[in-house]
Amino acid sequence: MTCLLVNERYRPFLEGQLPAGTQTLWYDDLESFRSQIAEAEVVWPDTAYPGGIRGAMEEARAMRWCSVMSSGVDWLPLDLLAEREVMLTNGAGLHAHSVTEFAVMGMLSLAKKWRAIVHAQDRGQWLGDPPGMGELLDAEVLVIGAGEIGQRIRTVLEAFDARVTMARRSPREGDLGSDEWRGALGRFDWVIVIVPSTDETRGMFGADEMAAMKPGAALVNLARGTVIDQDALLGAIDSGHLGGAFLDVTDPEPLPVGHPLWSRDNVEISMHLSGRAQASLFRRGAQRFLDNLAAFERGDPLAHRVDLSRGY
Amino acid sequence: MTCLLVNERYRPFLEGQLPAGTQTLWYDDLESFRSQIAEAEVVWPDTAYPGGIRGAMEEARAMRWCSVMSSGVDWLPLDLLAEREVMLTNGAGLHAHSVTEFAVMGMLSLAKKWRAIVHAQDRGQWLGDPPGMGELLDAEVLVIGAGEIGQRIRTVLEAFDARVTMARRSPREGDLGSDEWRGALGRFDWVIVIVPSTDETRGMFGADEMAAMKPGAALVNLARGTVIDQDALLGAIDSGHLGGAFLDVTDPEPLPVGHPLWSRDNVEISMHLSGRAQASLFRRGAQRFLDNLAAFERGDPLAHRVDLSRGY
Repeated sequence: MTCLLVNERYRPFLEGQLPAGTQTLWYDDLESFRSQIAEAEVVWPDTAYPGGIRGAMEEARAMRWCSVMSSGVDWLPLDLLAEREVMLTNGAGLHAHSVTEFAVMGMLSLAKKWRAIVHAQDRGQWLGDPPGMGELLDAEVLVIGAGEIGQRIRTVLEAFDARVTMARRSPREGDLGSDEWRGALGRFDWVIVIVPSTDETRGMFGADEMAAMKPGAALVNLARGTVIDQDALLGAIDSGHLGGAFLDVTDPEPLPVGHPLWSRDNVEISMHLSGRAQASLFRRGAQRFLDNLAAFERGDPLAHRVDLSRGY
Repeated sequence: MTCLLVNERYRPFLEGQLPAGTQTLWYDDLESFRSQIAEAEVVWPDTAYPGGIRGAMEEARAMRWCSVMSSGVDWLPLDLLAEREVMLTNGAGLHAHSVTEFAVMGMLSLAKKWRAIVHAQDRGQWLGDPPGMGELLDAEVLVIGAGEIGQRIRTVLEAFDARVTMARRSPREGDLGSDEWRGALGRFDWVIVIVPSTDETRGMFGADEMAAMKPGAALVNLARGTVIDQDALLGAIDSGHLGGAFLDVTDPEPLPVGHPLWSRDNVEISMHLSGRAQASLFRRGAQRFLDNLAAFERGDPLAHRVDLSRGY
């Protein structure tokens, strides 16, 4: 009898479909997660409690497979999982459409100064002139990180007739490699950061990179707040060197009350909602879990397995 | 010597490029437009003064070609132009990218309830849960009107993996014809109206069409406010039958102060800014004018000529 530990929120998408030979423990907060974890062989932790995750995981003595729905796994104790030889699978790809929708929304919102339009509607005021005239048409865009999300963003931006260049570890024709993109930053109207969060990418985009960007260009961070130097960003915004920033992620999260980034006209903050703002996520995430659970029961390899040494 | 009458705002994009053998009169308001129009053979009126246009046009006794940068020409006295055998050219296609950018921004804004995110940022508040989880992924979209704008919208929405059906007068494989789309309205999550404004399309989308839409679906109007029945729309929003509306255009414009559409949470109004919210419009519009002016001087046919009897 395989014992599973799963959040209540996925129950409607799983019930009636869990295979015979499994028993499911349901949790709905950190306490009920922690108190039931000792017996579970399959654990599906929730990103809602990143703070208590390591402490709870220490107790998971029976765990053989840990399944998460996020793409990033930096909130998990990877060393502990590696030490105990626990398999980890993630939600890579499940968020690509939703994050792409947010990326485009944020870019268009900056380009057109959509917030000024929203605020005019709030006042019931008809604007006679467009507050923003930026365009995706013919925009030069650099996408740093060519995973599933980066590639979807490229597809959509190209449909808008933007010109997209990818930066990746193993560059293909037309791409920039890890050592090349820094030297090319001055060419781009938009720089989109969508790399995995690892020791290597932490602080990857700092004051030097911002200074090398084209004056008036905009930075889009969809990775992790810690991948960019947030103080340097604030400086580049306030000096007028950068034209704007769209931040789905910040450092820390939540961004503290009163932080200056909240109040900049040309900084938009979407509160790390991008990956979850999709009605189909739970359905598609539950289906991926069920597919992997069937493989697990058969002893077959799991899909979307994370390399614990690389961290993605 | 061909005499031209052109708005001052285009001067930076034209000067030094106007052919020898032309003389240009510049205007910067309705009065200077009207007072110089009598001698002009080539008139480029501005949409900024639609109210006074007929009166001024009456005086344009020498006019042989009227060039406008808008796509819609319903603000011009077409009967007067026809009677005097004046050629009319428009800006069809010049706005396709910009209107498409607004269309997608409006749709994403409705789907994700972006205004709630903007308002949370205004308050400096980090939202823990996404206010909207609608998606373009797998959305069923009907685009009524298959001109350059409608086709660009299709291209971009398909890149988001939405499923797009076009309704047009001369349907191709997979399209719906003028008599077919009404019967299919119940299938679509989004209906986008982007038809030319003519006697035929006025009031085309009324209470019956809205009632036939799928419950919770959203209506996007990028055509003219008069193409849809705005009172019926308000009713369909307030009854909860429709999930939302994105209106780049209203009837009348400006939408009056205190009009109930201003204050509905699921109605977004972008003040007919879509076509003009682009930095490259004047440059591209001026280039089109210069190309046509060269053709005019040679006596060659003009590009983007409007059929005055059809009105587009």
